[in-house]
Order: sequence, then C-alpha cells, then structure tokens
Amino acid sequence: MARSKLKLIPLGGLSEIGKNMLLLEYENDILIIDVGLMFPGEEMLGIDLVIPDINYLMDKKDKIRGIVVTHGHEDHIGALPYILPQLNVPIYATCLTSGMIRVKLKERKALADAKLNVVSPGEQITLGAFNVEFFPVCHSVPDAAGLIINTPVGVVVHSGDFKLDYTPVYGRPTDLSRLSQVGAQGVLLLLSDSTYAELPGYTPSEKVVGETLDHIMGDAPGRVIVTTFSSLVSRVQQVINAAAKHGRRVFIVGRSMNDTVRMALELGYIQAPDGILGRIDEARGLPHNKVVFVTTGSQGEPTSALVRMANRAHPNVNIHSGDTIVISATPIPGNEAVVNRTVDNLFKQGARVLYDKVAQVHVHGHGSQEELKLLLTLVKPKFFMPIHGEYRHLSLHAKLAESVGIPKDNTFVLEDGDILSLTAESARKDGKVSSGNVYVDGLSVGDIGGVVLRNRRMLSKDGIVVAIIAVNRQTGKLVGRPDIVTRGFVDTREFKEMIDESRDLLAKVLDHSSPRATEWSFVNAKVRDTLDKFYYERTRLRPMILPFMVKV
Amino acid sequence: MARSKLKLIPLGGLSEIGKNMLLLEYENDILIIDVGLMFPGEEMLGIDLVIPDINYLMDKKDKIRGIVVTHGHEDHIGALPYILPQLNVPIYATCLTSGMIRVKLKERKALADAKLNVVSPGEQITLGAFNVEFFPVCHSVPDAAGLIINTPVGVVVHSGDFKLDYTPVYGRPTDLSRLSQVGAQGVLLLLSDSTYAELPGYTPSEKVVGETLDHIMGDAPGRVIVTTFSSLVSRVQQVINAAAKHGRRVFIVGRSMNDTVRMALELGYIQAPDGILGRIDEARGLPHNKVVFVTTGSQGEPTSALVRMANRAHPNVNIHSGDTIVISATPIPGNEAVVNRTVDNLFKQGARVLYDKVAQVHVHGHGSQEELKLLLTLVKPKFFMPIHGEYRHLSLHAKLAESVGIPKDNTFVLEDGDILSLTAESARKDGKVSSGNVYVDGLSVGDIGGVVLRNRRMLSKDGIVVAIIAVNRQTGKLVGRPDIVTRGFVDTREFKEMIDESRDLLAKVLDHSSPRATEWSFVNAKVRDTLDKFYYERTRLRPMILPFMVKV
Repeated sequence: MARSKLKLIPLGGLSEIGKNMLLLEYENDILIIDVGLMFPGEEMLGIDLVIPDINYLMDKKDKIRGIVVTHGHEDHIGALPYILPQLNVPIYATCLTSGMIRVKLKERKALADAKLNVVSPGEQITLGAFNVEFFPVCHSVPDAAGLIINTPVGVVVHSGDFKLDYTPVYGRPTDLSRLSQVGAQGVLLLLSDSTYAELPGYTPSEKVVGETLDHIMGDAPGRVIVTTFSSLVSRVQQVINAAAKHGRRVFIVGRSMNDTVRMALELGYIQAPDGILGRIDEARGLPHNKVVFVTTGSQGEPTSALVRMANRAHPNVNIHSGDTIVISATPIPGNEAVVNRTVDNLFKQGARVLYDKVAQVHVHGHGSQEELKLLLTLVKPKFFMPIHGEYRHLSLHAKLAESVGIPKDNTFVLEDGDILSLTAESARKDGKVSSGNVYVDGLSVGDIGGVVLRNRRMLSKDGIVVAIIAVNRQTGKLVGRPDIVTRGFVDTREFKEMIDESRDLLAKVLDHSSPRATEWSFVNAKVRDTLDKFYYERTRLRPMILPFMVKV
Repeated sequence: MARSKLKLIPLGGLSEIGKNMLLLEYENDILIIDVGLMFPGEEMLGIDLVIPDINYLMDKKDKIRGIVVTHGHEDHIGALPYILPQLNVPIYATCLTSGMIRVKLKERKALADAKLNVVSPGEQITLGAFNVEFFPVCHSVPDAAGLIINTPVGVVVHSGDFKLDYTPVYGRPTDLSRLSQVGAQGVLLLLSDSTYAELPGYTPSEKVVGETLDHIMGDAPGRVIVTTFSSLVSRVQQVINAAAKHGRRVFIVGRSMNDTVRMALELGYIQAPDGILGRIDEARGLPHNKVVFVTTGSQGEPTSALVRMANRAHPNVNIHSGDTIVISATPIPGNEAVVNRTVDNLFKQGARVLYDKVAQVHVHGHGSQEELKLLLTLVKPKFFMPIHGEYRHLSLHAKLAESVGIPKDNTFVLEDGDILSLTAESARKDGKVSSGNVYVDGLSVGDIGGVVLRNRRMLSKDGIVVAIIAVNRQTGKLVGRPDIVTRGFVDTREFKEMIDESRDLLAKVLDHSSPRATEWSFVNAKVRDTLDKFYYERTRLRPMILPFMVKV
C-alpha cells in the first residue's frame, strides 16, 4: 500500500514543442524520461541550442535511478551530452535508440563515462520504486517505444512519440493488444503525444511514401535525388527497396547521412541487397536512369549537400535538366523560407522537384485525432495528461479526451515545471518547480542571460553607434572633436554629412565646462540622449548608442 | 499594322511573392500595372518595407501613360506612396481599390498631387497605344479586377489576383463569359496568377466561411471575437450577416479596422442593418451571447487588439472562459510563431479558439490548379507567362499550361527584370533591365546597402566587441591598458575574467614599439586578429570586433 504521493514533473516539452524531459518522483526515487533539446526560435538570436533547466535535480542527484529514453530524435536525446555529465546515471533505451545516443555522446565527447543499457521491447526493468516496460510504437524512427510504468500508486502509461501505422517499414506496429491488456487491468494515468492533436482523421502509413517512391524511381527519366532527415532510416530503406526494384544503384552523399546509414546497417535496421550501395565516384560511369542519390538538406541547411547542389557548389554532383529531386520531409516551422529558396534554385536548373505540397513524398510520425482517441479508448486511464505540445495542442488533446468520456476534471493540462501529485484515487496540480530554457551558445551553457539576447535583438534592428569622447582629465574640456563609428545603422557614405553634424552637435552640448563634465554618468546620459534624439529625427531609426569616454 | 515589338517587363512579383509591378512598353508608350510592396523576410533585419527598383523608368517618365491597379492589397498598391511622387502619372482603379489607395496615400502624405481615376468594371480606357478594359474577378477583397489590354501586336489578358468563386460575398463572380468571348477572338498573351499553383483542386468559396460563422454565432455560449485582415471587408460583411441572424450586435475594435469599415460602409461595400454596429462601451451592458467583436491581430502583431487581449493588456476587452475566438486568416509565412503564441495565450485564459487548422474559418483568395487550368482553357492564349509567384510556383504553373495544350516553347517563365518581346506571331526572352529590392528603413528609402544588412546580421549573431586603444602620438606606445566594451556577446559578469585577460593580451601584442605602432591599419588588423582568435578559442563565438585608436 502506497503511503506517499507520486509526483510527476515535466521539465520540458509542455510549454514549447521540443526539449522533452519528464520526472517521476516517489519518496526517494526519481525516474527521468527523455532528455531532449530544442532548436532556437528566430527571436533567440545566435543561440545554438536550448536544453532543459535541471536546477530542481541538482540536490537530488543521489535519488535518480536512471534515464529512460523513448526514441532517438534530438528532442528526446539531444540534451544528454550536456546533462548526463552533471548527473551521471544509467541510461536505458532500445537498440537503435542506444546507437543514436552513442553517436550523439561521442560527437560531444561525453561517451566515455556513460552507462548505456540496451532494453528490448517487452522487457521490464526495475528502477527504484518504478518498474518500466518498453512497448513498441510506430514513429518516424525505428525502435521507438512507449512505456508502461508500474508505480506504488498505480500504472502510468507513456505513449512516447507515436502513430498507429499498421504497415510500418521497419518493425512492429504500435502494440495495441498489450495496451488493451494493460487498459483492462486498470491504468491510473495516461501521458500521450499531442504534437498533431490539431489534425483530424488518421495519419497515413509510411507505406504511402514507399509507393510514391516506387512510381518515381520507375518513371524518372534521369537521376533521382532523395533528401530526408538522417534519422529517418526507414525512409532510406524505402529508397533502397524502390531503387532495387527498378535496377538503380544508391549513393549516400554527405558525412552525417553516411554515419547514420552505416550504423543502421551494422545494427540491422537497414537491409541492402549486395552491391546496391556504392561510393559516390562510381555513380559517374552509370546511365542517369540507374542512379539514386540520398542526402540531407531537407531543411535548407546552408552547408548540406542538397543546398550546395542547388547553388551549383557541390564538388561531386551537378543538377541536370532531367533530374528528379524528392524532398522527403516537411520544413520545421521557421525553415520554410530557406527550403523554398532551395526548391526554387533546383527548378531554375531544370530539375523536376517533388515536395510535400505537390506529391505524397512524406508522412509525419505523430498520430492525428482519431489515433489519439483510439489510444485513450484502449488505455481507459483514470487520469489523463497530454504531453509533447504547446498549450493549444494540449488543450485540444484534453477536449478529445473529454469527447471519449474522460471527465474534464480528470484531465490535467500542465506547463513545464508544474507538479502533478497522484495517489491511487486522486490527482491534482500541486505547486511548481523551477524550470525553463538553458541556452547553449558556442561553448557557453546557460550563461546567455536575457541582457545578451536583448542586446542582440536591438543590434539586429538598427545597428550600433559608438561615440568616443576624449576629455581633459583636469579641466573636463573636450580634447578634439568626438569621434563616431557606426555599424549596421545607415550607409556611411550616404550619411557622412549627418554623422559629421552629429559630431559637431556632441562637441557643442559637451563643451561647456560643466563641473560634471568629467563624470562618466553625466557624459554617458548626455551623449545617449543627444544622439538618440538627433538620429531618430533624421532617420526614424533608434540604433544602440554606446558612448565611450577617454580621459587624457 | 504594328511595326515595333511590345516589351513586357516585370519589375517585381516574379522572383519573390509580393511587390508586384509590371510594365508594358510599346514605342513611346509605357503602361504600369500595380505598384506593390513586400514585407521583409527575416534575413532583412530591421528593414520596414521592400519596394520595387524603378531605375529603369527614371529617364522614361514622359513615356508613362498611367498606372493601372488591379486591386487594393498592399502587394499591389503599397509602394505607390513612395513611387508615385517620383513619377506623377494618373492612376486608374475600381471604386473600392481607389478608396484603399486614397487611404494609403493619405497616411504617407502623398495624396495631394495624386491623379486618381475611378474605372468601372467593363469600362475601357485608352492610355497611349494601349486600350485597357477592367473585368471583375473574385479575390479576397471586393472590386478586384483583371485586365484585357488591346495592344498594337494583339490582346494581352492579365488575370489579376483571382479565384473562381461562384458564390462570392460581394460583387460578381469572375467574368468567365467575357473571358471566353475574348478567348474566341484570339488572345496573344495570358498573364495569370501563380500564387497557389502548388494546390490541387479548387479553392473553396467564401460562402463556406459564412456557413461556419453562422454555426459559431448560433452555438457560442458567450461572446464571439472575430479577427481578420482589415482589407477583408467581405469577411466583415459575413460577420455582420451571421450576427444579425442570431441577434448579436457587432463592435469594431481598433483604429485600422474602424477606418476600413467606415470607408467600406460609405462606399457601399458593407451593408449593416440599423443599430447592429455599436460603440465598444455599449457592449458592456449586453448579455455575452449578444456580443460580437471584430478586430485585427490575425498575424500576431504585437500592438493589435487581439494580441493585447491575449496578454490581458487590452483596456476594454478581457477574455473570459466561455468566449469564442475566431481567427479568420492564415498566418503569412514567417508569422506562424507569433500567431501560435497568441492562440496559446487565448487558450490559457479559458477561451475556445477556432483557427484555420481546426475549423473552416478562412479560405484564401487565389485559384488552385483546376481554376488555373480553366482560365487557360477559356482564354486559349498563343503565349503564356505565369506571374505572381516564386520560381517554383511559376514553373508548376507552366507545367499546368503544358498539360492543357499550350506548347512548352510558348510559355515563358521570367524573373524580375527579364524582358519578354512580342510581335503578333512571336515571343522571346530578350535581355534584362535593372530591377530588384529597394529597402525602406525608417525615413531612408533605398540607402540601406548590403553592408548595413550584413553588419546587422553579424551583430545579431554574436554581438560586438569595441576595443579602445590609446597610444602616444609620438612614441606609438600604449597609454594605459586597452579598454573593451561588449554588447550582445557574453554575460559580462560571468566573463569578466576573460575580458580582463583579453585586455592584457592586447596590451602585450601592441606594446612593442613597432615603427608601425601608430599606423591605424596595423593596429586595426592586429586587434581584430588577436581578439577574434582569443574569443573564438574561449567561447566558440565570433563577435564583430571594432577597434578604435585614440592618439594622445
């Protein structure tokens, strides 16, 4: 009989999409589920990555029994290289997920001390008060898992990222019979993926893409170039299958795609007929209708192979009229413009370009509304908490739960840091822990305060004006005319006269031998006010103004 | 009999979506169609607007016979306040379009000298060698027109922005019978809207939205708040109709929405039953289920009424649980994140939010593939040129033309500045004129060179470091320790030590009394190299480095 409450604390993934991280805490045991990163929004100028704030865990390290990882996408594993060295606890994941974690940790030199354990679907592991069973789910990466967690207060089911694909490319469909079995036995709480809670109907099967690829490989008069995420190893498998059927050879272009394909081949997650994969230089001798390239670049990344091809800057592959380019991915929000530019540049070189808007060359990996309802219906949880999504996704998912009979009061829409307290009979929101975004900027982790970002934003808008004021140490009188340098403000040739005028203006307002004329605060404020007003009047711009006093 | 060639020159709207402007030139006559603006992409940091480069016209002003405007959207009229004062030629447009141009010119104080002529659909005007007939088309603003232009070499048909809505809210459907008549008589060239050439099928009628609004007004337990573009006056009409049916009163919130509605009421483009429109303070006394608010903010604009409501910062309207918010618009690419944040904030306040992904509360104003094919089939042009779109849209539209029998060689996919030369029998690409983007940044028009933008981009990434080096005028020796100020680079408290170290490093590398120690080029290069290397090693960041030498 449980005496204490189970606390469930999301440290990421609920207020924004990405950087998923969830804690289960019961007495002296903490279980962590996923440790993901988020790519920065446009407003986070210059920031490389965003990871969860784990302040809450810092004085509880000895309670953490392990990190369970549901699948190998960046938003579930990407922060491990930063956070694992601080916690140093064992990781549990399926085979391919472990492979992807290993690659990630190695890149950041955090592999040496990692305790990485491979868990099979169906296997149960005990981590303190928690007994965790991995069950297979379909997602856009093989070997993805959901979790059935036995806790002292009842069973918690975590969907992972999932869809219900009855004809997946690799592995088993989402294990619905295990879920109904668990549902029949009684589930206290369901945590379920809300990413596509806005979409009505069902998400199409990966098989649809396989069929499209098959038609393309058969019909294309020349080479076929397929670009996708390197984590989408089942998409690579589909390309290999379609190429094999139509007597084409497949050439993997680019380092990251090659690394992933090699790892997936070794672990058995990609099967390729003998001789179908080749080195890129072997492609040259082949007739165009016998060639398929596979490459990254689906997000318009400037250094990717596809973008370099589009810009006629790839060392090995030039786009010809007659080539067919398949962009087998959807732009991540924020990348639309660069992806569009890449498509335009490929069209300009005479290629046929097939992308999500004009052909069924991609399906996404998350369940739509009917799938979410089906899961709710099978699992029949007493309590429900939508996860993985922004507030509107979670709210819409809550509405779906209500529509299939989960009482409104039994559904909990949380935000990052909120605590959900559970007993076998009750659940309620119960306080908040510190949580939020930690920024990775170059080598700095978390030091990038609001001020730095605010300054970058200001600089990006109207640039900067540096004013150098030399004053006599004794008299406070100006020595020479103030100097002004600008960057990102106005065209300095066009506006030379205005800048000159502003130097004269500064000389006038400063050189009155005020008793405070050598005081930094006085000069600072005076220069800022004067220049801000003057420039705004002339240009309607408000550059950052940085006065600098040199005493001589 | 024509002796010369007709030249057709797009100055905007073909390489990018927006800033539409097209020239027809025949001997000594130039006709301009549309003078639009474009909103800046994310990479154009701090830029307010983008307008077409009209350098080509500057020594041909006396040849320009007039500007013909197809409809009142920003991307067709928005650059008039900037370009009209330079050209000072008469404008021709339909009634509502003229009203919208007048509002736009007045805002920018460019109305006084404008020669604005109202043209009725069906009316023909003669402008030099050109005879122009306006024909009605359906679009997401009333009174939109296409053009039938008689030229000395043959008839040119310009679709304007159009879709084929057989049940429009205001005005007539696109005049297909006039188009078939013209088609039967023989059309030399068709110019047609490519904006939605990626979309299969037909674009739904505005009527669909009317039905959705009707259901919402009937079902909503509380207030209904509808947000849309202020130019979408027919959407406002639909809201009024639905409100009237369900006994609700309508309150227009915000200045720009009020201005447009007032103008549209005056010109007869909105009809409202007596007493249905009210002043916002009258809403307070009414039961919630008798109230509708109409407001802007569909693009998440920070100062709009909707965003202020979402942030609990609107002086008159607080969101309650029970309110229904209808976002009757699609986010313009680039605005998705701010719109999503607004939706999230409205959900957090307990409102029900209906937006394009979850309800049919908006339809767009451009024809999809079947409509484009229908137009091509009716007009049966000898030559075809897709307009209004990025390269992929134009390419896909060209493919559609091929699919309905226009020979591939008779279709011309141009980019901005390309010249299409036409005789009665032939058409070919024939050179290029200068064209491109002119930036509006505060009061500056066109002075914002590439350097300014490049600098803003650099500043936005890793910030700036200003290094002040005081040297003795005679000896070249350093006077004191170099000073360093940073903005947007790193947290200055956290990194105080590193900054100190870099000052010492500068002192070391500069104070060797080199004969060149007072030469600016020497000090400049030395400081840049030293700091760039040092900071990159320590932080993996590359701030802009701005050395400054003071001789004392």
